[in-house]
Amino acid sequence: MKFVRLGPAGSERPAVLAADAGGIERTYGLDPLTADIDGPFLASGGVEATRRALAEGILPELTDAGNLRIGAPIRRPGSIICIGMNYAAHAAESGAEPPRIPVVFLKPSNTIAGPYDPAPIPPGALKYDWEVELGIIIGSPAVYLASPQDAAGVIAGYVVANDLSERAYQIPGEAGQWTKGKSLPASTPVGPWLVPADELDPSALGIRSRINNQIRQDSKTSDMLFDPTTLVHHVSQYMLLEPGDLILTGTPEGVALSGRFPYLGAGDIAELEIDGLGTQRQEFFAAVPGDSPRTGDTK
Amino acid sequence: MKFVRLGPAGSERPAVLAADAGGIERTYGLDPLTADIDGPFLASGGVEATRRALAEGILPELTDAGNLRIGAPIRRPGSIICIGMNYAAHAAESGAEPPRIPVVFLKPSNTIAGPYDPAPIPPGALKYDWEVELGIIIGSPAVYLASPQDAAGVIAGYVVANDLSERAYQIPGEAGQWTKGKSLPASTPVGPWLVPADELDPSALGIRSRINNQIRQDSKTSDMLFDPTTLVHHVSQYMLLEPGDLILTGTPEGVALSGRFPYLGAGDIAELEIDGLGTQRQEFFAAVPGDSPRTGDTK
Repeated sequence: MKFVRLGPAGSERPAVLAADAGGIERTYGLDPLTADIDGPFLASGGVEATRRALAEGILPELTDAGNLRIGAPIRRPGSIICIGMNYAAHAAESGAEPPRIPVVFLKPSNTIAGPYDPAPIPPGALKYDWEVELGIIIGSPAVYLASPQDAAGVIAGYVVANDLSERAYQIPGEAGQWTKGKSLPASTPVGPWLVPADELDPSALGIRSRINNQIRQDSKTSDMLFDPTTLVHHVSQYMLLEPGDLILTGTPEGVALSGRFPYLGAGDIAELEIDGLGTQRQEFFAAVPGDSPRTGDTK
Repeated sequence: MKFVRLGPAGSERPAVLAADAGGIERTYGLDPLTADIDGPFLASGGVEATRRALAEGILPELTDAGNLRIGAPIRRPGSIICIGMNYAAHAAESGAEPPRIPVVFLKPSNTIAGPYDPAPIPPGALKYDWEVELGIIIGSPAVYLASPQDAAGVIAGYVVANDLSERAYQIPGEAGQWTKGKSLPASTPVGPWLVPADELDPSALGIRSRINNQIRQDSKTSDMLFDPTTLVHHVSQYMLLEPGDLILTGTPEGVALSGRFPYLGAGDIAELEIDGLGTQRQEFFAAVPGDSPRTGDTK
């Protein structure tokens, strides 16, 4: 079962991909159950309600789904929380020691974008870089969790995300803060799918990125220093996690910051994928200051 | 004219304080104009509409306003953007050089709280610290602004805020990131009032904090290294600012991090004020992990 949001940016409708009785994957509209795939839907048992509705055959098939834009599979979250340097080889290529405990920073939630949307390179950017990441979607409020075991119960599902980063703003960031390189418009493509936590074991998934069909990142989520439940438990000691929030779990080695590959330029094609979570694809273009602001999937 | 939000957390109603024909300040309900004081209200000319409605005498007086809780004067923003070390003397007391360009970091928007709400000290916190700050409320979308002059047009108004910070999490932050010390529940009390930008010159306001009636911070906003329009222009180069967003402009010297004062403890009373923007007051209590999460003024 894969949750998706289909339609123009800001007007996405909720839908679900599921196999029919004959094993053929079809797309069904979720409008009978919810107006959107968001925190309230996940917190109120939306995943189970969807399973029941599919079993009962009460969801309408969307036969024109192939003609619709695919948005991020979750409505704009309250918070996007990021984990830095969570793969030892990426910490090394960034010139850093592996962290002893998770590195945490934030991205503005208005950076969320669809998985296939054309992706702007910010005006003035010199070192725009890709980062394929496993994203955790939170399903229940969580603060001061007692253990990583407790954290498992608040994870609703998983997504692919690209944590696009302008290194020229991030790395020399004043007082060491990375915010300026992690906040640019449409810098967080998410999707295509949200897969429920009970249908995906995140512990050893292949995670890859390609630029113009050449492999860049090619690792396993088992290389993470801190696994998803450890991260959710840890982050909850410092902030209130809310349903619909997105936690990006860090990127493996193979980004341009390593010096082994050129940074992104106009016309480049990025493809990012995680086993079981689909493949996203962005074509990059040079944004100019006069462009009307893009707010990602804001509503 | 002072915008306020009155009522229980999560159910605040919009209101405005204004002088009547006899010069007496009264409280009027804004329900005839808007359901809330938020980005859409500000972006659609809400300030001018309020002035017209007051002049026409069509807003109902709220005679019971004195009995109502005062919430943050803006609904939970999309983003809370913070400026670090924007007063030279505070940079010095923090052991840092004054920054050459603004230091930018983020707080989760669910940290917003009312100006008089009891304030939790997080479980495990050892060095919980106050920071009185001038807050800028954004009134129009802004990205890649051409100049500080252009920035003036996107500022809707100003507020007092407390950027509560757990130094034991912030200062040794992994990879230097401050996020863990700046994200704790209810760590951003805002208010009591939102004063429109055309009614307040922010350039030389007294800004003060007291703990248990003893002065801690006592400066002028003229001591800022980067003034509000410079900050809005600068931040817009790195992210899309949206109506209702809150930018905290940094704190003057006189926080506990200086070593001159004890950190906050249960029972302490903090009062924070800026000329023309009112005084906020919090009594601190020791939060325990079993407390149900407080989401500030979320709706």
